[in-house]
Amino acid sequence: RVDGDRLWDSLMDMAKIGPGLRGGNNRQTLTDEDGEGRHLFKRWCDEAGLTMGVDEMGNMFHRREGTDPDALPVYVGSHLDTQPTGGKYDGVLGVLGGLEVIRTLNDLDIKTRHPIVVTNWTNEEGTRFAPAMLASGVFAGIHELDWALSRTDAKGLKFGDELERIGWKGEEPIGQRKMKAFFELHIEQGPILEKEGKDIGVVTHGQGLWWLQITLSGKDAHTGSTPMPMRRNAGLGMARITELVHTIAMDHQPNAVGAIGHCEVFPNSRNVIPGKVVFTVDFRSPDQATLDAMKARLEAEAPKIAAELGLGIDIEAVGHFDPVTFDAGCVSAIRGAAERLGYSHRDIVSGAGHDACWINRVAPTAMVMCPCVDGLSHNEDEEITKEWAKAGADVLFHAVVETAEI
Amino acid sequence: RVDGDRLWDSLMDMAKIGPGLRGGNNRQTLTDEDGEGRHLFKRWCDEAGLTMGVDEMGNMFHRREGTDPDALPVYVGSHLDTQPTGGKYDGVLGVLGGLEVIRTLNDLDIKTRHPIVVTNWTNEEGTRFAPAMLASGVFAGIHELDWALSRTDAKGLKFGDELERIGWKGEEPIGQRKMKAFFELHIEQGPILEKEGKDIGVVTHGQGLWWLQITLSGKDAHTGSTPMPMRRNAGLGMARITELVHTIAMDHQPNAVGAIGHCEVFPNSRNVIPGKVVFTVDFRSPDQATLDAMKARLEAEAPKIAAELGLGIDIEAVGHFDPVTFDAGCVSAIRGAAERLGYSHRDIVSGAGHDACWINRVAPTAMVMCPCVDGLSHNEDEEITKEWAKAGADVLFHAVVETAEI
Ligand SMILES: NC(=O)NCCC(=O)O
Ligand SMILES: NC(=O)NCCC(=O)O
Repeated sequence: RVDGDRLWDSLMDMAKIGPGLRGGNNRQTLTDEDGEGRHLFKRWCDEAGLTMGVDEMGNMFHRREGTDPDALPVYVGSHLDTQPTGGKYDGVLGVLGGLEVIRTLNDLDIKTRHPIVVTNWTNEEGTRFAPAMLASGVFAGIHELDWALSRTDAKGLKFGDELERIGWKGEEPIGQRKMKAFFELHIEQGPILEKEGKDIGVVTHGQGLWWLQITLSGKDAHTGSTPMPMRRNAGLGMARITELVHTIAMDHQPNAVGAIGHCEVFPNSRNVIPGKVVFTVDFRSPDQATLDAMKARLEAEAPKIAAELGLGIDIEAVGHFDPVTFDAGCVSAIRGAAERLGYSHRDIVSGAGHDACWINRVAPTAMVMCPCVDGLSHNEDEEITKEWAKAGADVLFHAVVETAEI
Repeated sequence: RVDGDRLWDSLMDMAKIGPGLRGGNNRQTLTDEDGEGRHLFKRWCDEAGLTMGVDEMGNMFHRREGTDPDALPVYVGSHLDTQPTGGKYDGVLGVLGGLEVIRTLNDLDIKTRHPIVVTNWTNEEGTRFAPAMLASGVFAGIHELDWALSRTDAKGLKFGDELERIGWKGEEPIGQRKMKAFFELHIEQGPILEKEGKDIGVVTHGQGLWWLQITLSGKDAHTGSTPMPMRRNAGLGMARITELVHTIAMDHQPNAVGAIGHCEVFPNSRNVIPGKVVFTVDFRSPDQATLDAMKARLEAEAPKIAAELGLGIDIEAVGHFDPVTFDAGCVSAIRGAAERLGYSHRDIVSGAGHDACWINRVAPTAMVMCPCVDGLSHNEDEEITKEWAKAGADVLFHAVVETAEI
C-alpha cells in the first residue's frame, strides 16, 4: 500500500504554487506558475531516481527503468495545470499519485519488468488555450503539432511562444513513444461516488464533447437613442442561444449536459448595445447519437435566432471528442485491484474529458476515480479526503505494478 | 454665421487624439488621451484669449469677458471624453461648437454684455466610471464630491486618483459658479432628424434613465461532470434577465427602450459553469410613470428568475435621472434662432442623457441637435456632414449671443 500522508503532503506542497484567492489554485497552463510547478515535480522525480524526457509540446516523462530492456513502459499520470479558479486535486492527484507509485516501489525495493513512466501532460484544462487535452491530443495524433503550437490565448499570445518563454519546450519529437498501457487517477468531479459511499470508480467510458464557439455580429449603437426596431443586439442573441443550449440539454436528460462558460461582449459599455459577442457552447453526452443530435439542433436553430435579430452568425468547433470506451484489460486490472484491496467500487462514466481519453486511441488505457465532496470541481472549494486520495493511489499502484509485472 | 470649415478642421484635429481602430475614437475619461485632448482644447482657448478655471472634478471653464462686470455668464459646452469604440462628434461637437461661437465673436469683434464660458464636463460617457454625466451631476448637487471621486473603474482604479494622475484636478470648489443660462449642441444619436430631412432639433425634453447593476451568484462547477439538476448557473440567469429586459421595453413601445450593454462572467472559462455574473440594465423612457414601471417590474420579476435557478441576486442602481423638461425661454431662443437663420427644424426629445440634463437643475438650459447618419452613435462609424455641424453651430451662436446680449 502507498503512503497516504506522503501523497497528501506533496499535494499540499504543489498547491502552494499559484494559490487561488479562496484556498484553491490558479496555475493556468504555460504561466510562470505552471513553470514553477513543473520544476517542483521534476525535483521530486529526480530525487526518486527518475530520468526526464520533455517533448515539443512540453509533455514531461519521468522514467523508472525496468529489468527487461525490450519491454514497453507502463505510463501513469495526468496534468498539473489548473483552471483560473480551480481546485488542488483536479489533475494533480493523477500526477502525484503516479509519483507515489514510484516512491512506494522504491521503498519496497521492487523492480518491475517493464519501465514505468510518470507523465505530466501540458494544457489539459483548455481554459487559456482551447481545446482541452491539447498536448495529449497531439501525442495521440488527433491534432497537428503546428496547429497546436499556434493556438492563441485571449491576449493573442501563442502557445508555442509561451511554452518557450517558461522554458519547457523540449527537443523530443512528440508521439513517438510506445506504451504498454496508460493509467490515470482522477477525482470524479461529479457526485455519484460520494453519494453512494463508494471508495473507487472504475471508469469504463467517458462522455463525448463539442465546444462550439459562436460569434454573433450586430451593430454597436446607443442604448438610449436607438429605437427598439432599429437594434441589432448581439447580446440578446447570446441570451436566446444560452436558453436554447439549456433546452437542448434538458431535452436529453439524464443523458446530456450543456452550458456556456465563456463569453466576451464588445464593446462592453453600459450604454452601448453589444455589436459583437463571442461565446463557447459546451455540450456533452456519453452517447454518440445524442451528442451529434445536440450539435445538429444547435446548428439548425441558432442561425434562425440570429436571423430574427438581424445578426450575423459564425459557429466554429474549437474542441471535440467522441464518447470513449476504455480498454477492457486495463479496466479489469483496476476493478481487480479495488476488489483485492477491499475497497468498495462501482463502474462509472467520466463526465469530464481527460488525457486518458486521447491516449486510449494509441495505447490500452483506463482510469481510476476517487470521490470529491459534493461533486464539486472547477471551483476553488474542490475538496477530497486523505483517505479517498490514498485509496485511489493504492488501486493505481496495484493496477500499474500488475501491468508492469514484477 | 460661424466658420464651418474651421469648426470641421478642429473636429478632425481633436479626432487625431485617441484614434479608434475603425476611424472613430477611444478617448475614455481620465486616460492619457483624455489629458492630451484637454491640452489641445486649452491651447485653442488660450489662442482665443480665454482664461481658464478647472474645478475639483476636472471640469474646464474657459471665459470670455463681457462688458458688464456684474452680469452672470452664459455657459456653452459638452464633453470631450468618448466611448471605448466611440465616434468623433458625440460631445466633441458641443465643446468645439462653443469654441467656434467664441472664435466667431472674436472675428466680428463683438463684445457681449454677459461673459461667455466654454465648458468641457468630465466623464460624460460613464463607461469607465458609472454613472454617466458624473461631473456635471456633482456640479448640479446631485452627487456628493467624495462619492464621485471614489468611483472605481473595472480595474479598481479610483476616479480621484486618475484625475490627479493625468494632471487635471483643479483647485476650484465645484458647483459655485452661477449661470445665466447653459446651451449644449449635440448630435441627435437617433434617426429622426435625418429621416425627416430636418437641419435642427430643438430639444424640449430628455428621456429619463435607470442603470441597474445586477449581480447573480451561483456556483462555479464543471460543465461536463455536474448533473443538470445540481447546477446553479449564473449565466443562464443573466440570459433570462436579458430576455426580461427586452420584453419589458417591448411592452412599452414606442415609449421606452431597454438593453444590457455591460457584462462580466466569472471565472469565464469554457468548461466552468458561471458562478457569478455582473451586468448592467439600461432602461429609458421620456415618461416618468413608464420609467418607474419598468424598474418596478424588473425588481419584481428578476428575483423570481434567480430563485428558480437557485441564484442569489443583488440589484444596485448605479445611474439614474428623471425625464427632463428644458427651460422654455432657452428652448425658444433656439427655436427662434433656427427660424431666423432659415434652417428646417422640429422639436425633439433627447434619447440620450447629456450634461445639459443635470445643469438644467441649476440654471436655465436647452439643447440644439443636428442629425447624424443612420442615427448611429456609440459606434466608430458615427458620422455627420460639415453642413449639419455648421447649421447646429450657427443656431448655437445665435441663441448664445442673443442670451448674452450685445
Ligand atoms: N478533467 C477535466 O476537468 N478536464 C478538463 C476538460 C474538460 O472540460 O472536461
Ligand atoms: N450623449 C451620450 O451618449 N451620453 C452618454 C450618457 C447616456 O448613456 O445617455
